[in-house]
Amino acid sequence: MNAEELKKLVRNVPDFPNEGIMFKDLTTVFIRHDCLEWISEELYNLYKDCGITKIVGIESRGFIMAANLAIKLNAGFVPVRKKGKLPAKCREITYQKEYGKDTIQIHMDALNEDDVVLIHDDLLATGGTMAAAVNLVKKFNVKKIYVNFIAELDYLKGRSNFDNNIEVTSLIHY
Amino acid sequence: MNAEELKKLVRNVPDFPNEGIMFKDLTTVFIRHDCLEWISEELYNLYKDCGITKIVGIESRGFIMAANLAIKLNAGFVPVRKKGKLPAKCREITYQKEYGKDTIQIHMDALNEDDVVLIHDDLLATGGTMAAAVNLVKKFNVKKIYVNFIAELDYLKGRSNFDNNIEVTSLIHY
Repeated sequence: MNAEELKKLVRNVPDFPNEGIMFKDLTTVFIRHDCLEWISEELYNLYKDCGITKIVGIESRGFIMAANLAIKLNAGFVPVRKKGKLPAKCREITYQKEYGKDTIQIHMDALNEDDVVLIHDDLLATGGTMAAAVNLVKKFNVKKIYVNFIAELDYLKGRSNFDNNIEVTSLIHY
Repeated sequence: MNAEELKKLVRNVPDFPNEGIMFKDLTTVFIRHDCLEWISEELYNLYKDCGITKIVGIESRGFIMAANLAIKLNAGFVPVRKKGKLPAKCREITYQKEYGKDTIQIHMDALNEDDVVLIHDDLLATGGTMAAAVNLVKKFNVKKIYVNFIAELDYLKGRSNFDNNIEVTSLIHY
């Protein structure tokens, strides 16, 4: 397995979730053991020397690889969820989406100023949710924030959402 | 780490999501590397000789450990999601919940009659969603179905939802 082979295995679904959008469906990748193994190893190699203490996974597709990576990196797993899903006291942030607003939350006691955080999601499109997640994690005054995606749609320029001091990586690019 | 220690680390949240319910919050477990490692090893040891080909994770907390287990068991990961989230052609099932109905889906091409399936979720409470997931997976005529949870609320008798031919395991019990 390599990045080019993985790219070919991602399913293109036209007009999902809305007309005119070509959706990149990673379920056709996650269903293959060789792909899971390759993604897991690539992510580990990217971050093994960064001193990551917490992997923050974005609900819900970001959860898929996040705990595996936490185990490999000797880190903990922290979920970012839509408002109302996390049961204990939370910090939250509200952000503008294409249609309306959304609020995401992280448990108040989930991160602290000693943490080096990797925020992970499966796909970088326009980047609105990840930008909000970065701003939410910043509220915890963590030491450093890394951002990672499995796939990035370069033509949507989602990367422009992030400051220069945030290192953003993606395993495959379109 | 062991089952008794893990039980003590689960957070009890009173009146969530509704008044009178004592919610078992596993985020306080997932945030600890030693817990993740222990859960991962226990699940691997339970299923390493079962010939599992696909781990089906139930959205969204079931996603957290499912892909890690798939990697360890040399299997693929398949998501069960609420209707409208999976982009390609799906099989679906509608089931009764405490308040109203819900529909969950699996991609049509995600499972087949050669598969030995482990369906995983974090918590067994009344078991309605898992029972629906089992009935949905049955529609694919898979060879065998196993069901697993990290935690089970024995006093809610969710286990009574499953036929005797379905092997149900949980790592910790309340």
